Amino acid sequence: MAEKGARPGEFGLIERWFRPLATDAAAFGLIDDAAALTPPPGHDLVLTKDMVVAGVHFFADDPPAAIARKALRVNLSDLAAKGARPLGYLMGLALPGDWTADFLDGFAEGLAGDQAAFGIGLFGGDTVRASGGLTISITAIGAVPQGRTVRRRGARPGDLVTVSGTIGDAALGLRLRLGTLDGRPAGEAAADLLDRYLHPQPRTALADAVRDHATASLDVSDGLVGDLGHVCRASGVTARIEAAAVPLSPAAAALAAADESALASILTGGDDYEILATMPEADYPAYARAASAAGVPVTVIGRIEAGAAPPVVLDRSGRPIALPGSHDHF
Amino acid sequence: MAEKGARPGEFGLIERWFRPLATDAAAFGLIDDAAALTPPPGHDLVLTKDMVVAGVHFFADDPPAAIARKALRVNLSDLAAKGARPLGYLMGLALPGDWTADFLDGFAEGLAGDQAAFGIGLFGGDTVRASGGLTISITAIGAVPQGRTVRRRGARPGDLVTVSGTIGDAALGLRLRLGTLDGRPAGEAAADLLDRYLHPQPRTALADAVRDHATASLDVSDGLVGDLGHVCRASGVTARIEAAAVPLSPAAAALAAADESALASILTGGDDYEILATMPEADYPAYARAASAAGVPVTVIGRIEAGAAPPVVLDRSGRPIALPGSHDHF
Repeated sequence: MAEKGARPGEFGLIERWFRPLATDAAAFGLIDDAAALTPPPGHDLVLTKDMVVAGVHFFADDPPAAIARKALRVNLSDLAAKGARPLGYLMGLALPGDWTADFLDGFAEGLAGDQAAFGIGLFGGDTVRASGGLTISITAIGAVPQGRTVRRRGARPGDLVTVSGTIGDAALGLRLRLGTLDGRPAGEAAADLLDRYLHPQPRTALADAVRDHATASLDVSDGLVGDLGHVCRASGVTARIEAAAVPLSPAAAALAAADESALASILTGGDDYEILATMPEADYPAYARAASAAGVPVTVIGRIEAGAAPPVVLDRSGRPIALPGSHDHF
Repeated sequence: MAEKGARPGEFGLIERWFRPLATDAAAFGLIDDAAALTPPPGHDLVLTKDMVVAGVHFFADDPPAAIARKALRVNLSDLAAKGARPLGYLMGLALPGDWTADFLDGFAEGLAGDQAAFGIGLFGGDTVRASGGLTISITAIGAVPQGRTVRRRGARPGDLVTVSGTIGDAALGLRLRLGTLDGRPAGEAAADLLDRYLHPQPRTALADAVRDHATASLDVSDGLVGDLGHVCRASGVTARIEAAAVPLSPAAAALAAADESALASILTGGDDYEILATMPEADYPAYARAASAAGVPVTVIGRIEAGAAPPVVLDRSGRPIALPGSHDHF
């Protein structure tokens, strides 16, 4: 069922583009079809897998380096939210028939840059012919001190609800790109939003602080309200957050003022890859200090409450805001 | 870029079909977007990823349980060849738009049966919308005593070349299915070959013996001669094997007698998922005994020789057989 094309086969492809990425000893230089990782003593390994598909999670004509970075970073974001330090990743790559050497040059360059930035290596993987568009399946592996993985369950009534960075930029960037927003911010602000959609920023620098302080945590990928709902469901609690407390970039704030539909995108749109963490009020000052030292702003947006129910978002006058369902990449 | 269909979204899908497979504590019941594995003390983790695509690695109309088993087993086969005991796996599943509940019932049933058979659990994964046909990306994780992973490098001149089971059945099964063979064995023999293509049998039971005796090892997936070539290249050696010594099932032997082209398929066709292991002659009796105790036949097919070159296959009169290039799933 497999025919050879004119371009290099799988082995040539590994040789040219992927072996240079296999910088960790665990990868055996991709000579074997498997890696062997010696786990850091006293640590658990955190394993996560996010798959991205052309036309579903990214645009097929996005820059190849950006596609590579997104495929990798959405996984690193999961590790950070669990309090884990990233070690490396395996990558399954299903390439459509029209791939070019230029594409793989850019793609590998994107990975190489992120490997250096996050101190990780490619452990192994597989390259196959796609039956449709480009599909990238990355399994990322991180380490946490044994038993210290931060779960979605664990939030307790009275805990503060915090988020890192700003929320909604990526969802608005996507809407800008699709042309479904009334307003459009001026040049640089628009570029910032578009870039947030293209380039998730995994909060790896926050992982230690999350582990030290959070009772529950996840990365906001399905939308702030939906993901807070996941924490509530896993923890058997509910939450109230204030829409006005949700940290916005200047561009997002301007759009929210110009287009009523923007707020819903901000609260439910997803692709933020910021860390939502709950913690006792007494822990928050130390968390905020550690976050600040790591260069990541954090903000309190509400509080966990007793009662197993979906979270409620309040407007400025304390009334609940009705919101559409959360974002579902599937 | 994501719209909801009428069927359950990703969360409903996880709930119904995948949570029951998350039997290992490491999986956190799939409640988190990550697993946390406490590595067995004193062990390395062996990591492998093989991706399979409808129309490339399997037929879209294969039984769903068989597709699931193949996707999983090709990975377990890699672990066995490295001398590793399987622990679990993560699965990325890109589902085409026309998936049905029946399909997922069968698919999950195939996984559940193999999880029980191989003593493993689903650690986590991701389900997304495919842009083409069904694509399954599994990362399997196994354990070996620290530093004991069996590599492709390590074969030494004088070592015997051994294979488990019989070779060529899956490649002939594929040719039967495609109708590209002159002969066709009688009913049961044909069914056996077709089943070998559909259902790889990972030699998990051989892992300990491989670790105890092999100087180099891999699983035969790209074709016997091509994979032996990988061992030779990684080890800086060459090899001579005798075509007549390659173990054949009765059906494959009959086909080889009836159709000259069958021999090339046997030697280079791939999808065997048998273990090719090299070892000093003095180790072989103990290896064969351990293999026999594990219920897996093993056979000596040739010898490693000095000189970095591709392996040579000899016919009954000691003349080299010219063969096409090895199978390339890409």
